[in-house]
Amino acid sequence: MPDNIPTTTCSAVLCRYDEIALKGGNRMRFENQLIANIKKVLTPAVNLHLIRVRGRILFRFDELPEPTITAAVAKLKKVFGLASFSPGCLIESSLEMIEQTALSHFQHTYSQLSTTDRGSISFRIRVRRSDKQFPFSSNDMEIKIADQILKNYPNLNVNLRNADITTGVEIRKEWTFVFSEKIQGPGGLPSGSNNGALALLSGGIDSPVACYMVMKRGCPLHFLTFHSYPYIPGESVDKVARIVNVLNSYQLNGRLYACNLAESQKVIRDNCTAKFRTILYRRLMMKIATNLAESLNLNAIVTGESIGQVASQTMANLNSINHVTDLLVLRPLVGMDKVEIIEKAKRVGTYTLSQENCPDSCTVFAPNRPATTSQITRLEQEESKTNPQDLLTGSMANIKQISV
Amino acid sequence: MPDNIPTTTCSAVLCRYDEIALKGGNRMRFENQLIANIKKVLTPAVNLHLIRVRGRILFRFDELPEPTITAAVAKLKKVFGLASFSPGCLIESSLEMIEQTALSHFQHTYSQLSTTDRGSISFRIRVRRSDKQFPFSSNDMEIKIADQILKNYPNLNVNLRNADITTGVEIRKEWTFVFSEKIQGPGGLPSGSNNGALALLSGGIDSPVACYMVMKRGCPLHFLTFHSYPYIPGESVDKVARIVNVLNSYQLNGRLYACNLAESQKVIRDNCTAKFRTILYRRLMMKIATNLAESLNLNAIVTGESIGQVASQTMANLNSINHVTDLLVLRPLVGMDKVEIIEKAKRVGTYTLSQENCPDSCTVFAPNRPATTSQITRLEQEESKTNPQDLLTGSMANIKQISV
Repeated sequence: MPDNIPTTTCSAVLCRYDEIALKGGNRMRFENQLIANIKKVLTPAVNLHLIRVRGRILFRFDELPEPTITAAVAKLKKVFGLASFSPGCLIESSLEMIEQTALSHFQHTYSQLSTTDRGSISFRIRVRRSDKQFPFSSNDMEIKIADQILKNYPNLNVNLRNADITTGVEIRKEWTFVFSEKIQGPGGLPSGSNNGALALLSGGIDSPVACYMVMKRGCPLHFLTFHSYPYIPGESVDKVARIVNVLNSYQLNGRLYACNLAESQKVIRDNCTAKFRTILYRRLMMKIATNLAESLNLNAIVTGESIGQVASQTMANLNSINHVTDLLVLRPLVGMDKVEIIEKAKRVGTYTLSQENCPDSCTVFAPNRPATTSQITRLEQEESKTNPQDLLTGSMANIKQISV
Repeated sequence: MPDNIPTTTCSAVLCRYDEIALKGGNRMRFENQLIANIKKVLTPAVNLHLIRVRGRILFRFDELPEPTITAAVAKLKKVFGLASFSPGCLIESSLEMIEQTALSHFQHTYSQLSTTDRGSISFRIRVRRSDKQFPFSSNDMEIKIADQILKNYPNLNVNLRNADITTGVEIRKEWTFVFSEKIQGPGGLPSGSNNGALALLSGGIDSPVACYMVMKRGCPLHFLTFHSYPYIPGESVDKVARIVNVLNSYQLNGRLYACNLAESQKVIRDNCTAKFRTILYRRLMMKIATNLAESLNLNAIVTGESIGQVASQTMANLNSINHVTDLLVLRPLVGMDKVEIIEKAKRVGTYTLSQENCPDSCTVFAPNRPATTSQITRLEQEESKTNPQDLLTGSMANIKQISV
């Protein structure tokens, strides 16, 4: 084994975005947004230089300890718009340097395998040579590097189709990039490439997943949650704040607003027919959300509504709730099964939090048999037993921004 | 090998539904809907008897040739609400009969494996005994049956965790059910367990997937498509009709309406600013859909809209289009990536059809640079250059029901 292996295995990162997602007339705008978002994620830790390569982006880190770089690169797993990324080594385009670095890269990846796996692994070398004046062809380089590796690890096999380790080498005039890992990004579109929206967020399983899905399409979100203190404990808002923290790891600066609905719920309890309470709460929530969204200059609302068997989510009730707002309502879960939603919640990282037992606003004074169907005119008649405008104004006054 | 193997391996089918999806207060209603749907799928071919088992449903076929039964059972793969199903044999609860049938079932499944696989396969027997007066315990029965199989196939292995073949035996007082296959159902909620809706369907990849997702949540759909004959060829409607045929294999009797938009598009072309054409078409389509839905007594519209980079699907444009309707609009794809949608289209069975090249209505007189953002007031101003009510009435008159 050679003694003079380069000491670092990560001095740059190659970012790939999804061609399908980013094609079309607005490509440059998406690409610039993606670059800005990557920079925000990487910059606090590192001295960064951007190199654009056709359809991909390369960032070079200067003079930084490897653990700092590794920590920064790990955050790319949550940058929407990235299909995949590869931490690697940016070096000069000389044969000796390339051979050495490719070997050290391979060794690094190999050393991370469990000892039981090491016996039977296969590898391959993939060289792309944009610099046609480089004295060796891609194919020559692949053979040269593979020979180096086989000299050090004579028991390994080359497999060009299904290798356990693929070491990639991209040779250009000015630099060469060597990497051995391809880490999956979250896909989607860069955060901020579409307009923002206001999301209705509860402590349940569904709404955080709905938020994630809309955020993944490039829309930054602010959040509105409802509570009914003192009828439900104050911890319910803490729980939602922790969920917002998870969601904000995929975007920047999403704000959380909490609205205390208790007073309004008492008015509804005291004046309206019991079986309509849940749906009247939800209509009021939608009105509050519309008002808040408009004051924040957002023209869409996101909900975790799904078409299901629970009383509030029959199509008739979704329609009755929708009817109180003129804004666009995005319901990304509307065609999903509960099992699919749970699976996604686990991947997003909100499932465990959502599982913590905590009552939510809708259960306060909830009737035994909530209505599964509702005529809009009948609901309006129920609402006229209260003073709907006062109810809305009063509720709006009970909104507070929560620090997250 | 015994000579007296029962001649049939399928005289009944056990249907399992998803506990998570069907729990809650309305369970009986969902279960009854599911039973009705299964019957509709199976009845044309078979003489059917229903046996309810806790949390599952068993259907017995009487005196029918096995190919007929097999064909009928295959259709269950498209019945929403089914988690899985197992064709099998319903027999009397005697030791001899059970042993014989389990063996013949195992043989049948084993014979369907490729000869190369047969050497190293493993199996297990799973017995459930609800009849506690049956003289042998579940465990005893599992051992007895496994012994029978090993006597005939001495080279096979028993594996209680990851068997290649699992033969299931359910012993009750009145009958015993034996099966060796567990076929995945599509999940979701039974068609008809929720209200119907009107779907906007084009020949593209997205809208059929949107339809499938909403249908899967129990909502039967009718379909509305737009064309611009003679500016686009008449085949575009044929293509959509073929897509409806695929979608109707998951539900019953979805109707297709086709609206010729050509005349209205000419009016918009001649009177309105070019860059707004696409979005003005879409607002008109949404108004037509709202009118048709209401006349069909449906209170929701389904679209394949997603938040993406195409001009018509920015959040601002979705909001402007949404603004013309008071109905609930379901957009199940709103949080999905294109790659996810394509993958789903392939599973639904509409992808190949959608790939056929055929221009759609939105491309007729399409501007070079469609607006990616739009003020509602500006669009209303554009619309006032035409006679919006005449445009709507004229378009409604150009709707025809297409036989599918």
